[in-house]
Formats: sequence, C-alpha cells, structure tokens
Amino acid sequence: MPDPRTVFFVSDRTGITAEMLGNSLLSQFEDFKFQRVTMPYVDTPEKIESVLRRIDDVATREGRRPLVFSSIVEESMSAQLGHANALVLDLFQVFIAPLESELNAKSSHAAGRSHGIANSHEYFSRIEAVNFALAHDDGASTRDLAKAQIILVGVSRCGKTPTTLYLALQFGIRAANFPLTPDDFADKTLPASVLPHRDRLVGLTINPERLKQIRGERRPGSKYATLENCDYEVREAEQMMQRESITVLDTTTKSIEEIATTLLHRAGLQRHAY
Amino acid sequence: MPDPRTVFFVSDRTGITAEMLGNSLLSQFEDFKFQRVTMPYVDTPEKIESVLRRIDDVATREGRRPLVFSSIVEESMSAQLGHANALVLDLFQVFIAPLESELNAKSSHAAGRSHGIANSHEYFSRIEAVNFALAHDDGASTRDLAKAQIILVGVSRCGKTPTTLYLALQFGIRAANFPLTPDDFADKTLPASVLPHRDRLVGLTINPERLKQIRGERRPGSKYATLENCDYEVREAEQMMQRESITVLDTTTKSIEEIATTLLHRAGLQRHAY
Repeated sequence: MPDPRTVFFVSDRTGITAEMLGNSLLSQFEDFKFQRVTMPYVDTPEKIESVLRRIDDVATREGRRPLVFSSIVEESMSAQLGHANALVLDLFQVFIAPLESELNAKSSHAAGRSHGIANSHEYFSRIEAVNFALAHDDGASTRDLAKAQIILVGVSRCGKTPTTLYLALQFGIRAANFPLTPDDFADKTLPASVLPHRDRLVGLTINPERLKQIRGERRPGSKYATLENCDYEVREAEQMMQRESITVLDTTTKSIEEIATTLLHRAGLQRHAY
Repeated sequence: MPDPRTVFFVSDRTGITAEMLGNSLLSQFEDFKFQRVTMPYVDTPEKIESVLRRIDDVATREGRRPLVFSSIVEESMSAQLGHANALVLDLFQVFIAPLESELNAKSSHAAGRSHGIANSHEYFSRIEAVNFALAHDDGASTRDLAKAQIILVGVSRCGKTPTTLYLALQFGIRAANFPLTPDDFADKTLPASVLPHRDRLVGLTINPERLKQIRGERRPGSKYATLENCDYEVREAEQMMQRESITVLDTTTKSIEEIATTLLHRAGLQRHAY
C-alpha cells in the first residue's frame, strides 16, 4: 500500500460540510489511505496565504499534489486558494453560478450563513430538542411526552439513546425513548406511560449476537450480557411490537444517520439537516 | 415575496450531505423562500422514475423548475435523474471525475460507504464517545475522566451539554463537562475532580443577558434566572478561568457546530466528521 495521500479540508467557516462531502467522495476510493487535515475559519487573504504555504510544503515533501476540498464563499479568496499546488475542489463555487442563473439573482457571497445561528428561533428550538431528548432518555421522564414527535422503544442497548440525541442535534426533532424490560415482558404490555402516544411509537430491534457483544463491553460476564438473555429479551420485545402493531426497525447493521433517516422517512416527518 | 420555490434533496443513501451542502448554498439567497423535500434511499431505477414524476408534477403545478440537489453514486441513475424538469445539481458526479483522474484510479461507484458502519471499529468508538458524554454530563461522574479528550467547564446553561454531545456524535470526541456553581465561587477553586486534568480544560462563557433569557425559559421567575444572579455567576466564572489560566470561549453568538469546531481547532485535536 502506498503512503497515505494528504487531504486538506479548507473552509471560511466550520468546514463540516466540506469534510462530509469530501469523506463521502474519498470513501469511493477504497484502495487508498488518506491523511486528513481540517482548516476551519480561513476567512482572510492572509490566512489563505498561510494555507497555500502549508499545502505547497506538503506537495514538496510528499512529491505529489495533495487533495483540497474547500468551501470558500468569497470569490477572490477561493480563486487565491485555487493557485495551490494541489487538486482543489471548491464545493461552493461550482454550484453557485448555476443557482444564480436559475434564480436570476446574485448570491450574497457572505460567509457564515450555514451552521450559524442566523435563525435564532430555529436554533433555540433545536437546543430545546436536545434538552427534550436528555430529559426523556431511557424513560427518565413522562412529563411533556405529548410533545414528542417520535418515541422509540426497545431493549437496553439497541441504539435508542444515540438515535434520540442525533435526531435532536442534527434535525431538531423532539424524540423520547423508553426501554422495554423483563418487567414489561412479564406484564405482556407496553410501559403504561407510552400507551396514550402509540401513534408516535417506533420499535428498534437488534440481532441478539450483536446485542450480546455490545452489552458484554459494558458489563462483561453479567447475566444481562449472555446470549441466552439477549435472545430472550429481543424475542419478547419483537413479539410485543408485533402484537401492538408497532413499526420495527432493525439497527444491527445501521449507523445512527441511517436509523434516524429511516425513522423520519417512515414517519413522514420533514427534517432540516443543520 | 414570491411563493417558496420547491427544493428536492435526492440521495441513494441518507441525503444528509446533500441537504447540508444544499442548505449552505441556498442560505446565500436571502430574498428567497424555499420549500424543502428530502428523498433518501432512492437507489433503484424505479425509485428514480417515481422521483422524476414527482419533480415534474411540482414543475407543472408551480409553473417553474424546482431545484434538485442530488447525491447518486451510480452513474446511470444519476444520468436518469438529470432528465428531470429541474435544475439538477449532483454533488457527487461533478467531483468524482477529477478525483479519478488525479488518483489515476476508478472509483468503486458503490453507494452507502458514507454515513454507514463500514468501519465498525471507528463506529463503535463513536458510540462509546456518546456514552462517555452522557456518563460525564454535568459532572455526573468523575470515573474515567482521564480518558476525556476535552473537559468543558462553565456556569449552568452556557452550552456545555449540547456541545459535549455534538463533539461525540459528529466527531467521535470523548468530552466531559462540569458545572461551575456558586459553591465553587465561594471556595474560589475549580471542582476538585477536574484539577488533575487541567491540561484538557476549556471554559465556556456567555453574555449574562442571553443567559438570563435561556434560564428564564427553563425556570421562569426564579432567582437562578435573574439578571443579577446571571451577572454574578458569569463574572465569578470568568474570573476563575482567568485565575486558573483556562482558555475561554464565548458561546453567546455561536452555534454548536461553531463552538465544537473552535474548541477542537484550538486544542489541536484532529477530527473526523461523520
């Protein structure tokens, strides 16, 4: 395998969008290794100049051009960065011209509109969603449960908490989650506090082998983590979801992003990625 | 103001990257209103066909072309979507050719490498970071604090918790946070449990007026939320941070993304946006 190739993510703001798109593109080249460097808040000609020097140094040292994914709103600074001894792909400039032409309007070319708190009402409601997720994690509170847009149920460690937090942070969705426990299985009924909200219930499930692995990391050697117990809990939970006609999503091979996207898509909830 | 223009985000996977870049571009056109529709998991020619029909319906109904931000890895399906009666901007195809040429390699053109759990070790450590953030939220636990990559301190409601969770979910960074309370101010000392880790401490602060507003939403009419008390706590906290030579970041006008990016940048922690 050749040496890793250096990749720069250069942005006048956080660089998160540049990194996401860049990583998504790089993941298409499986046989390569990449060494990533993120450079956020590059928002003056002087900072661009210093980035140019750094890129050129790497190009000289490695004997080949680095890759640069950039997101620079200001045209002249983007052009300045284009002089780097690198393959420079500006995610912003390439799309702004066709948009200007289609909308028949000039863009404001002002940095920092994305990932900021320009819309403070929207931002505040997103932070409220995070507080809501924390207050309603793992059945901690049943207060204001009527305000939940979605309520996840499932056995311990099937992915409820990270999904709930991701829904709040990334999409501003108010999500709660409730564990399904052996007590619920003995009663053959859902936790009483979620019953009035069944229209917003979604079940998460997981492969028992995978669950055993996850629980084992957390409580090695416990009965909780045995395959026998995981098998039992997952089977009971799935039967309960079926009995109660709750939609079920298997999280075994899904990332938080995939779980969250699938949940919102199925629930018909429009989202806004921040 | 004209009617909102319809914007589609079409992806063979979650669509999160397409939405982020699309929203970032659209935020440059301040005088326009947009109606957003996200269509994830469009990964067969039949699904593309159904999306095409929906886009064409909207074009006919609104009497103008919608905007489409797409991220479709498979070339023929991307070309198929290009036939829509819309301005179609494919975030993926436009960059893959120059990358193939630069790397002198064909891309795998396989969907689903991003936002998935292809690298399960990395994914697991990211979920562990979320568990760590929850376990170490608001000083809840001092166990394993040595494993924290960053420890935030600051007064109640200055933004510690959402930032900690974001660092974990988006970047896989293990972050803890500790409140600074009137008890600490009376003692004129940092909480004892964070003292051994001062190299990883970062202080968050906030404008007292803004803090009053945030606390007031939470506990209206409380002493906790008075301007006088907010003033006092912020002043004491800032003095303590100065005395202890802790870097301070003002969160008043910053989003979670901006706070997280700035913290990592200052701490010199390399990140990986998922």
